[in-house]
Amino acid sequence: MAPLRESSGDPVLPDPPQGPLHVARARASFPWKELALFWEGEDTLRFKKAIFSALENDPLFAHPRGSRLSVEKYQELNFLRCKRVFEYDFLPVGDMLDSLPRVLALIECLGMYDWSLAVKFFLHVLTFGSAIYSSGSERHLKYLPKIFSLEIFGCFALTEVSHGSNTKGIRTTAHYDPSTQEFIIHSPDFEAAKFWVGNMGKTATHAVVFAQLYTPGGQCHGLHPFLVQIRDPKTLLPMPGVMVGDIGKKLGQNGLDNGFAMFHKVRIPRQDLLNRSGDVTPEGAYVTHVKDVGQHFSESLGSLSSGRVAIVGTSVVNLKLAVSIALRFSATRRQFGPTDKEEVPVLQYPMQQWRLLPYLAAAYALDHFFKSLFLDLGELQQGLLGKDRSVRQAELGREIHALSSAGKPLASWTAQRGIQECREACGGHGYLAMNRLGDLRDDNDPNCTYEGDNNVLLQQTSRYLLGLLARRGPGGARIESPLKTVDFLDGYADILGRRFEGSSPEDLLDSSVPLAAYEWLVCYLLRESHQKLSREKRSGKSDFEAINDCQLKDDAVALVDVIAPPDFILDSPIGRADGELYKNLWTAVLQENKVLERASWWAEFAVNKPVIGSLKPKL
Amino acid sequence: MAPLRESSGDPVLPDPPQGPLHVARARASFPWKELALFWEGEDTLRFKKAIFSALENDPLFAHPRGSRLSVEKYQELNFLRCKRVFEYDFLPVGDMLDSLPRVLALIECLGMYDWSLAVKFFLHVLTFGSAIYSSGSERHLKYLPKIFSLEIFGCFALTEVSHGSNTKGIRTTAHYDPSTQEFIIHSPDFEAAKFWVGNMGKTATHAVVFAQLYTPGGQCHGLHPFLVQIRDPKTLLPMPGVMVGDIGKKLGQNGLDNGFAMFHKVRIPRQDLLNRSGDVTPEGAYVTHVKDVGQHFSESLGSLSSGRVAIVGTSVVNLKLAVSIALRFSATRRQFGPTDKEEVPVLQYPMQQWRLLPYLAAAYALDHFFKSLFLDLGELQQGLLGKDRSVRQAELGREIHALSSAGKPLASWTAQRGIQECREACGGHGYLAMNRLGDLRDDNDPNCTYEGDNNVLLQQTSRYLLGLLARRGPGGARIESPLKTVDFLDGYADILGRRFEGSSPEDLLDSSVPLAAYEWLVCYLLRESHQKLSREKRSGKSDFEAINDCQLKDDAVALVDVIAPPDFILDSPIGRADGELYKNLWTAVLQENKVLERASWWAEFAVNKPVIGSLKPKL
Repeated sequence: MAPLRESSGDPVLPDPPQGPLHVARARASFPWKELALFWEGEDTLRFKKAIFSALENDPLFAHPRGSRLSVEKYQELNFLRCKRVFEYDFLPVGDMLDSLPRVLALIECLGMYDWSLAVKFFLHVLTFGSAIYSSGSERHLKYLPKIFSLEIFGCFALTEVSHGSNTKGIRTTAHYDPSTQEFIIHSPDFEAAKFWVGNMGKTATHAVVFAQLYTPGGQCHGLHPFLVQIRDPKTLLPMPGVMVGDIGKKLGQNGLDNGFAMFHKVRIPRQDLLNRSGDVTPEGAYVTHVKDVGQHFSESLGSLSSGRVAIVGTSVVNLKLAVSIALRFSATRRQFGPTDKEEVPVLQYPMQQWRLLPYLAAAYALDHFFKSLFLDLGELQQGLLGKDRSVRQAELGREIHALSSAGKPLASWTAQRGIQECREACGGHGYLAMNRLGDLRDDNDPNCTYEGDNNVLLQQTSRYLLGLLARRGPGGARIESPLKTVDFLDGYADILGRRFEGSSPEDLLDSSVPLAAYEWLVCYLLRESHQKLSREKRSGKSDFEAINDCQLKDDAVALVDVIAPPDFILDSPIGRADGELYKNLWTAVLQENKVLERASWWAEFAVNKPVIGSLKPKL
Repeated sequence: MAPLRESSGDPVLPDPPQGPLHVARARASFPWKELALFWEGEDTLRFKKAIFSALENDPLFAHPRGSRLSVEKYQELNFLRCKRVFEYDFLPVGDMLDSLPRVLALIECLGMYDWSLAVKFFLHVLTFGSAIYSSGSERHLKYLPKIFSLEIFGCFALTEVSHGSNTKGIRTTAHYDPSTQEFIIHSPDFEAAKFWVGNMGKTATHAVVFAQLYTPGGQCHGLHPFLVQIRDPKTLLPMPGVMVGDIGKKLGQNGLDNGFAMFHKVRIPRQDLLNRSGDVTPEGAYVTHVKDVGQHFSESLGSLSSGRVAIVGTSVVNLKLAVSIALRFSATRRQFGPTDKEEVPVLQYPMQQWRLLPYLAAAYALDHFFKSLFLDLGELQQGLLGKDRSVRQAELGREIHALSSAGKPLASWTAQRGIQECREACGGHGYLAMNRLGDLRDDNDPNCTYEGDNNVLLQQTSRYLLGLLARRGPGGARIESPLKTVDFLDGYADILGRRFEGSSPEDLLDSSVPLAAYEWLVCYLLRESHQKLSREKRSGKSDFEAINDCQLKDDAVALVDVIAPPDFILDSPIGRADGELYKNLWTAVLQENKVLERASWWAEFAVNKPVIGSLKPKL
C-alpha cells in the first residue's frame, strides 16, 4: 500500500478537527488515512468528497431531516432535494454501467445523508427506469429521457394490501379489449389495492403495475407488468378511474411517500404492456418466447437479487453510521474510574468493548462482502442484457440469488441489532432523537421486511444448498459454483470428520480456526436438514399436513383475549378483536390527514422543472 | 375456579365482536373469560373496565397520540389528559396503600392507553410525592395537598448531562449561608446541568434536586435532596436564576416533557432541604442519624427498587399489547396455502408460531412475576415506613434489590426484542405507524436504560449471588432469603452433580426439566464466576489494571474515522469528529425549537384548575 500523497491544496482526506478524540486517535496502531485510501481507492474518495461538499454547501440540504420533521414538510423537502440531485447530476445515467464503484459511492453518500432521499431517487431512476428498460421493448424507450429529465416520475407497483410475499396471489387484473386495442386495469376490491408503493403517495405520475393478464375468452396468462399513468404531470391530480393516496406515517423513511392505488376500469393503450416476456397482438392473441415457467423464473432471479443486494448495502451504511456515533461517544464519555477523582472513558470497560467492537468488525466485513457481491451482480446483469443463455450464466444467477437471499437477512438483522446496541450503549443520549440512532434504526427496519421477509429468504438459500447436495448424491457431480462460495461443500464428508485439536489460547486466535468451525457447522446443519427432509418425504407427509399436526397455536387467540385491552385502548387496526384485518386497515388509512389530497408543493414538480446538470460539481 | 357468573346488565367481560377471529377463538381449548377472571380477579376487572370506559367516552382521549402528533401538540394533549385524570380521581391517593391491586391496574390502564400519560401522572404523584414524603420530614407535609390538587407540579432531578449511572459524580452544589439561613443551589457548568428530568421540560414548578451539600468552612457532606421551586405556578415562567427548558425530541414518550435545568446561585430556604437522612442547623452545623454510608445505602435500596419494579410492569404491558396485535394479525393474515386457490392464516406456519408464541408465554410469565414482586415490594416499603430495622427487613431489601436488578433487564429486553419480532412478523403492516408496534417499541426502549443501564444492573444481582456464596463458605451459614428465591443455592454442590437422565421426548416435555436445567446453569455460572474472581484477587490485579491489559479498543476510533462521513452528513452531536461531546450536545439542545419558551398552553395549568374527583366514575 503506497503512502497517501496529495497536494496540500485539495486534500482528499482533511485532518479531523482537534478535540478530546485526538488522544484516542493518536493511540491507533495504524495511519487511518492510509487504510481509508486502501479501502475505498482515491477516485471514490474524491467522488464522495465532491458529493458531500455539494450537499454541505447547499442550504436546501441544511438540517433538519428525519423524525424531527412533520411528514408533510419532510416529504416536500425530500422532493426538493431529490430534484436538486438531478441538477447536480453527480453521475449521469449513461456513465453508471461503466462506473460501478461510483454508483456504489453515490448510493452510499445519498443514503448516509438520508435514506428517504436515496430511496426516492433510486426508485425512480433505477427501479422504475430499469423495469421499463429490461421488461419492455423498443417501443418503451421513449419513456427513458422523460425519466431522466423529470418530465414524469415513476414507481413500481407489485405488492397489494393482502399479498406481499405470495406474488402469485396478486389480484389486480388487465383484460384486453380488442375493439379499442386497450387493456383495462382493474382492482376487484380494496384487498387488491396496490399498497406500500414508494413514490406513489404524492409524487408519481406513472407506475409499473403488475396485473393478471386476461385475453378475450377469459384465459389468464399470469402476472405481467404494465405502464399505467396515474397522475397528470401538469397538475399532479389523479387520472380518471385512479384512486391514489398516501398510506400514512411509517416507523421511518417518512420523507418517502409510500402510496396505494385502486384502479376502476382504467384503460391504457395495448403498447403499454411491458412485453419482454409476453405480448398480446392487436387482435388479442397472447404470444411469448418464454418456453416454460422455469425459464421465466430463472430470468427474473437477476432482478430480484438486485433489490436484495442493494439492501445489504443499505444495511451496511446504517451500521457504519451507528458504530461511528457510538464509538466516538464511548471514547469521550467518562463514567466511574479507579479513584473518586478520576473517571475513564466508557470504551475502556471490557463490557462496552464487548457490546460494540463486534459490530465495528461486522461493519468492515459486511462492507467488503457488499462491494464484492455488487460487482458480481454487475457481471450477472451484463450477461442478462447480452442475452447470455450459458450454463455458467444460469449457475451464476442461482448462486447470486442464494447469496443475496442469505446476505440480506444477515446484513439487515446485524444492522438492526447493532444500531439498537449502539443506542443502548449511548444510554440516555442515545435515546435523544438529535443523536440520530433512532432514525438510523427506524430507517433500517424495513430492510428486514421488503424484497422478501428475512425468514422466508433464508429458506431460499437453504433450498439452494440442499439442491446442491441432492445433485451431488453418491458419486454425482462435483459441487462447484461460478463464485466458488460453495466449493468447500465438496469436501463435505471430510469436513464433518474434522475435530478441533488446538491446545493453547494462541491456537484459538488463529483466524483459520473460526473459519474451519463455520465450515463444519454449515456441513453439519446441511446434513441434519437433508436427513430430516428425506425422512419426511419418505413418510409421505406434505408440508401442509405437517403444519396441522401442531396444536400449541389454537389457544393463542384466546390467550390474547385475556391480556388485550378493548380496541379503543389497543388502538391498532391490524389488532382489533373482530379480526376484520383489511376493512379496519383500509378505514384507518382513509381517515388519515390529507390522504387523497394533492401535495401542497405540486407545482415544484409540475411547473418548476430542474435544469439537469446545471449545478454539476467538478469531479 | 368458579365459572364466571354475572348479571346480563353489566357484563364485566363483554363478548368480542363477531368477525374472522371468531373461528380461531372458537377453537381454543379453554373459556378465555374464566382465565381472565382467574388471572385478574373480578374487582380488578371491574376497576379496569371503569377506567377504560371513562377514557373511551371522553373526547379528550380520542386519538391520535404517539408519534403521529407533533411534539408540541402531543405535550399539550398529554398535559390536558393528565389533568383530566385528576378529575376522574379513579383511585384517591389515600386509598393507594390499601389497594395495591388497584394501583397496579391503574398503572396498567393508563400505560396501555399511553405511557407518556402514565409516566407524567406517576412521576408527579408517586415519584415526586413520595420523594418529599419519604426523604423529608413533618415540615414538608404541607406540600402534599398541593401536589394532589395540582397547585404545584413536580419532578425528580438527579441525572446530569455528564453523570447518570455514577451518582457520586453529581456536581450540582448546595452551599449553606447561615447569614440568611438559605442554601445556594448552583450548577458549576453545563456538564452539571440537570438533564432528562421528566416533567421538567415545560410543566414542573418544583423539583427535588440532588446536590452536594456544603456547610460553612467548605466541608462536603455528600448528595442530598432539596426542594427547589423552578417556575412560578401562576405563570409557568422560570424563577430567577433558573434556566430551564426541554431537551428535545426523543425516540419515544414524546408526550412527556423531559427537561434540563441550570441553577445560577439560586437561594432556597434552609427548610427546603429534605432532611430525613441529614439536616443543617440554622447556624450551619450538619447533623445526621445515619451512622455510616452502609446504612444510608441500605435504606435507599428500597426506593431504587421501586423504580425498577415499575419498569418490569411497564415492559410487561408493552409486551402484552404487542403480542395481542401480532397474534390477531397472524390469525387473520393469509398467505400461501396447500393449493393455489386456498391460503392459510400465517399463524398456521411453524415459523410464525416459533417467532411469536414464546413471547406470548413470556408475557404471561412476566406478568405473574411482576405482580408478585410488586406485592413483595409493598411489604418492604411498609417496613421502611414503620422504621423496621430487623435483619429480615434488611435481607428483604437486598433480595428485592437483586430481583429487581435482574428482573428489569429481563423484562425490558424481552419486551424490546418481542416487540421488534412482532413488528417483523406483521411484515409491512407492522411498519405502518397506525398499527402501533413502532410506538410500543419506542416507548419501551428507555426501559433498557433508565433506573440503571441493564448491563450495569445485572452486575448488581451477580454481586448479591456471589456474596451469598462467599458468606456460606465451607461450613458457613445456610443460604436462605425472605422470599426464598435463592434457597435452592444451598444445594449448590448436589445440583452441580445432577445429570439429565431422560430418554424419551416426553421426559423433555416435563416442566420440571427446564427448571432443573436452569438451577444447574445458575450454579455452574456462579461457581465459574466465583473461581475467576478468586484467581484475580489472588493475582493482586485491580479491575482497572485488568481493563488496561486489553488493547483491541485503541484502534476503534481510527477504524471509525475510515468509515464515518463528514460531521455534516453524520449529523449526530455525540458522534462529531472532535469529540467535544457535551459542548456539541448542549449547542444542539439550545438550537431546538422553542427550547426555553413557555408552553403555549401554560394557562391550562396556571389558571384553569381541575376540580379533583369531579368526573369520578361509579366503581
